[in-house]
Amino acid sequence: MDVSEQILAIARNAREASRATASLTTAQKNRVLRGIARLLAEKKSLLQTENAKDVAAARGQQQPAVFIERLTLTPAVLDEMSAALEEVAQLPDPVGEVTGMWKRPNGLLVGRMRIPIGVIGMIYESRPNVTVDAAGLCLKAGNAVILRGGSEALHSNRALAALMQEVLTSEQIHPAAIQVIPTADRDAVLELLQLSDYIDVIIPRGGESLIRTVYEHSKIPVIAHCKGVCHVFIDASADPGMAATISLNAKVQRPGVCNAMETLLVHRVFAEKHLAALASALRAEGVTIRGCERTCRMVPEAEPATEEDWSTEYLDLRLSMRVVDSIDDAIDHIARYGSLHTEAIVTSDYNSSQKFLREVNSSVVLVNASTRFNDGHQLGLGAEIGISTSKLHAFGPMGLAELTTKKFIVYGEGQVRT
Amino acid sequence: MDVSEQILAIARNAREASRATASLTTAQKNRVLRGIARLLAEKKSLLQTENAKDVAAARGQQQPAVFIERLTLTPAVLDEMSAALEEVAQLPDPVGEVTGMWKRPNGLLVGRMRIPIGVIGMIYESRPNVTVDAAGLCLKAGNAVILRGGSEALHSNRALAALMQEVLTSEQIHPAAIQVIPTADRDAVLELLQLSDYIDVIIPRGGESLIRTVYEHSKIPVIAHCKGVCHVFIDASADPGMAATISLNAKVQRPGVCNAMETLLVHRVFAEKHLAALASALRAEGVTIRGCERTCRMVPEAEPATEEDWSTEYLDLRLSMRVVDSIDDAIDHIARYGSLHTEAIVTSDYNSSQKFLREVNSSVVLVNASTRFNDGHQLGLGAEIGISTSKLHAFGPMGLAELTTKKFIVYGEGQVRT
Repeated sequence: MDVSEQILAIARNAREASRATASLTTAQKNRVLRGIARLLAEKKSLLQTENAKDVAAARGQQQPAVFIERLTLTPAVLDEMSAALEEVAQLPDPVGEVTGMWKRPNGLLVGRMRIPIGVIGMIYESRPNVTVDAAGLCLKAGNAVILRGGSEALHSNRALAALMQEVLTSEQIHPAAIQVIPTADRDAVLELLQLSDYIDVIIPRGGESLIRTVYEHSKIPVIAHCKGVCHVFIDASADPGMAATISLNAKVQRPGVCNAMETLLVHRVFAEKHLAALASALRAEGVTIRGCERTCRMVPEAEPATEEDWSTEYLDLRLSMRVVDSIDDAIDHIARYGSLHTEAIVTSDYNSSQKFLREVNSSVVLVNASTRFNDGHQLGLGAEIGISTSKLHAFGPMGLAELTTKKFIVYGEGQVRT
Repeated sequence: MDVSEQILAIARNAREASRATASLTTAQKNRVLRGIARLLAEKKSLLQTENAKDVAAARGQQQPAVFIERLTLTPAVLDEMSAALEEVAQLPDPVGEVTGMWKRPNGLLVGRMRIPIGVIGMIYESRPNVTVDAAGLCLKAGNAVILRGGSEALHSNRALAALMQEVLTSEQIHPAAIQVIPTADRDAVLELLQLSDYIDVIIPRGGESLIRTVYEHSKIPVIAHCKGVCHVFIDASADPGMAATISLNAKVQRPGVCNAMETLLVHRVFAEKHLAALASALRAEGVTIRGCERTCRMVPEAEPATEEDWSTEYLDLRLSMRVVDSIDDAIDHIARYGSLHTEAIVTSDYNSSQKFLREVNSSVVLVNASTRFNDGHQLGLGAEIGISTSKLHAFGPMGLAELTTKKFIVYGEGQVRT
């Protein structure tokens, strides 16, 4: 079987399995999640042996330390994976939920019921924990899933897939409900992206070039997680202590993630009084500042920002800073340079807070809170398969509900159209 | 300017206009809708003169009568277009609606607020009334829209665009909020489908080949309205009178539309008692029947159905009919041959009704009501821009809410992540 035939078979089997997963009971799905959690604990040494092959190869390729860290299945990581599955098992089942029901003048009772999307294709980095997290979420939402992690994690992912399929089989569920693409061949992804008859959505996670490739080639709808050029705007009326706490948290608590702040916009009135102290506090945490002309005048240590800086996701202890004359200028800057991910305002002014919430159309908009809260757990979705920066279907963190769609259901008594 | 530059300019202008339309007040949007309605009435003779050019050319091309009918702007059609705009003006504004709000343990108040999608590209048949209907719905939902109707309606659509832009300008709104592609050049569509930086979604309506072309070439997410192979299943326990009324309505009330029934599935127990009478009633209305082997035994006038019949959208007074042994066989038939559009069950059995609603995952599933109710107005959405048969973003009839997306909004008091 060549790659093309292999991928077609995987997709066909997933479609077939998706009919069965759609009507699993909540109890059946939770038994699978807990069965996988248990087996992850029981088979730690086998999984670590397979994972060690991937880690050794990655070390041989001189992959950076953070890459190796994300690739490695330590006993602690395996325990976290089990705990995450238990968490998903405890979440309410989204399938079958009726989100609204209304009566029509002719007596028809019309409602909308959540149903699984069908078959989900996940393409992601070399992080074997994602293999299990994503599989658990997709299954709980009644979907079949095809997983394609980074090729550097192939031994780990194959072992995890075998383990998950063992549980499915023992629960008499079609094992193709959870499949891992068992080859490192890069053509496999391109083949997958053609199979719109069998796969309902592709969710890519990872670097910009991966996302671009997926958009370029996919015949299947894509829900993508692109970059986060996140802003904090400090309004004239902001409390200086709160402004500093939020700015520091948004920038330094975990600078390498997508919801970290990349650009700080400061109202002129606030800047004149407090910018020097705020910049010192940031610099004390190791942050390098690239500023507009006015920033550079107020903060002598700042380097001048280039036009490119304003749209750059540093993912590092580096910050763009601009002094603006008004909230309108801040909103315009965000519309021009932002990536629709996460923006926060710090303000004590009621009208500014409402204006910012209304006019900034990013996936998460916050008043007086850190950008770091753009996360499915933090916002109360219970779990998260990713953060969508595209507006169709889901915008912002995606939990179980975002892995479903809704059909209309109608209760009649013999009504016809006239 | 060549076509490529022309389409790029249209898309860029639409993106710019979409920032303004997103923050229009409800009153401003309704003034535009009512202004267009008024001008449609005032400029009837100008519009009919332009429309007459399209109609004459279509007659010259020997287009079928139904095509000419849909192309023609009679005074009655223009009045209906005005009335539809008034209806949309009276609907609640979806933009800014908060669909839910909850409190997190750390005190954050988290909600989801409807916002416009941004820029919508509509590709549709040679029906100038759709130009105005779609523009009204997109604008009310705060979007800019680029309209590309069939090239046979170009004179009509250009005149309608000029009229609508006149109203926008008089209300000081960016006229690129509503644009018609002013050329019949077929490359214009292919150019449009590349511009994912400026256009957020493409909504194609029309024949299967158009939809396929759009899917094939689009770099922009597509919400498509594909064919409707709609089923009615008559359960063993169905009331014979209701079964006949619903089957007749679903097949003959308007056979040429997507929510008309194409296949009737009949439980063996019902068929033995009532199929002959039901078939006679259908035949009396001019319906030709293509049946399975058992149908042909019970209804001597039926022709044998081929495998292809089961997945054919006749859009005509023609019906496929199959006798099945159980509700499970009916559900399997629908899963295999259906197009996820509309399916109805006629039953007096509680368990059958719930099973059918639960296990059939088409966009609209009805108990004891005609398939003809799959329509935005009939189901209470107030209006409809189309019926989505793809599961992402919207599934089933799309009203104003489906022309929006939702962002997360967060009210904090200085919270940061630890």
